[in-house]
Amino acid sequence: MASRPGRPRAGGPSTSGRGTGEDILAAAAVLFCEVGYSSTSTYAVAERAGVRQASLYHHFAGKHEILRALLLSTVRPSLELAERLAASAEPAPARLWALCAGDVRLLGGGPANLGALYLFPEVDDEKFADFHELHRALRDRYADLVARCGTGSGSEAAETGQLVLSLVEGVILRRREEPGLDVEALAERIADGALALVGLPQDAVATTRAAGAALLCAATSPAAAEGASTQP
Amino acid sequence: MASRPGRPRAGGPSTSGRGTGEDILAAAAVLFCEVGYSSTSTYAVAERAGVRQASLYHHFAGKHEILRALLLSTVRPSLELAERLAASAEPAPARLWALCAGDVRLLGGGPANLGALYLFPEVDDEKFADFHELHRALRDRYADLVARCGTGSGSEAAETGQLVLSLVEGVILRRREEPGLDVEALAERIADGALALVGLPQDAVATTRAAGAALLCAATSPAAAEGASTQP
Repeated sequence: MASRPGRPRAGGPSTSGRGTGEDILAAAAVLFCEVGYSSTSTYAVAERAGVRQASLYHHFAGKHEILRALLLSTVRPSLELAERLAASAEPAPARLWALCAGDVRLLGGGPANLGALYLFPEVDDEKFADFHELHRALRDRYADLVARCGTGSGSEAAETGQLVLSLVEGVILRRREEPGLDVEALAERIADGALALVGLPQDAVATTRAAGAALLCAATSPAAAEGASTQP
Repeated sequence: MASRPGRPRAGGPSTSGRGTGEDILAAAAVLFCEVGYSSTSTYAVAERAGVRQASLYHHFAGKHEILRALLLSTVRPSLELAERLAASAEPAPARLWALCAGDVRLLGGGPANLGALYLFPEVDDEKFADFHELHRALRDRYADLVARCGTGSGSEAAETGQLVLSLVEGVILRRREEPGLDVEALAERIADGALALVGLPQDAVATTRAAGAALLCAATSPAAAEGASTQP
């Protein structure tokens, strides 16, 4: 979210160094997760972010635009990661491992449990149609990778892809129940679990994990992100 | 929820045949899932249930008691099933299959997606401590069954048990995204997935599934439920 210059904040420039737009998103994320979407006012968001309400409306058309941006931030990086992994020559199981581990890190990271927003009734609104579309696209990426692992194809792979995604998104309930959750360790366990679901033989898991971890490291390095952003 | 007699409803006796308490729970379940907990008034619940607000307060001390009863209804039957399965002489993988399939049916059944309530911020309140305790107890049952499947023990089994529970609870997000979901088919797929997670050899899956399905059928028959309710 790029911050437009020239608008004063309530308390001067962003003290977080993230910019006003990001400060508003961070404040809203915590409030939505702690008290709910309907119970959070734009006034409360602006106050927590340390900006004037007018400044909030300068960055976002309304509260729904903030929720929309937060929802999209939980799927866009995963789709970008899936795209980078699609370009890799590594075997499909290693790429699946990397996608799962990267997704768990994304959903498990950050101060607020943004994945919990998926279950909020307000997200049914058609204002969030693009989020639902991207989430379906991510599901398709999982199904595609699962099919390439050789576990059947078509509806069979789609169903197994869904199971893998359920395993990954299980981090949402986990972090809600266990505040001190070790997300990094969980990411590896879940990615290992995905390999079991696609029927990878036990003796191939260690090699696949090592290849997947290297792949994820390369795909999420600053250089990889820069390369992606300069593509047309 | 036993309905106390002698109190008039707004519209006469329950037309659903379930009793006033159950009518109130059913109405609240739909409203909580459709518009959220905070945004639902006891007035709206009473109106939808076709009872007077006074009658609602005769059955429940307040809105939180209704949410509490709904939350408990998503875990108590699972724990009862786990208890019945613990008494069975069938091998652990078949019992795990039955518990998973039974849990998916429970969470996937009924008109409202009650599992979505788990993610509501309001559920953090200590009023719902007994729900959280029962959910932890269920997690322990999964870990125990996984350990009996021979996949390590202690923290190893606990972690795998968590993965299995994530797979099961994945039905919550699935039914939210796919209104026409075939829960029965999904229950079998998820239970099969659990067997993969505990490392059951592929050639043992079909036999285990058949044994698990028979076990689940016997454990959820009316006779089994009656036997359980007459225990001290």
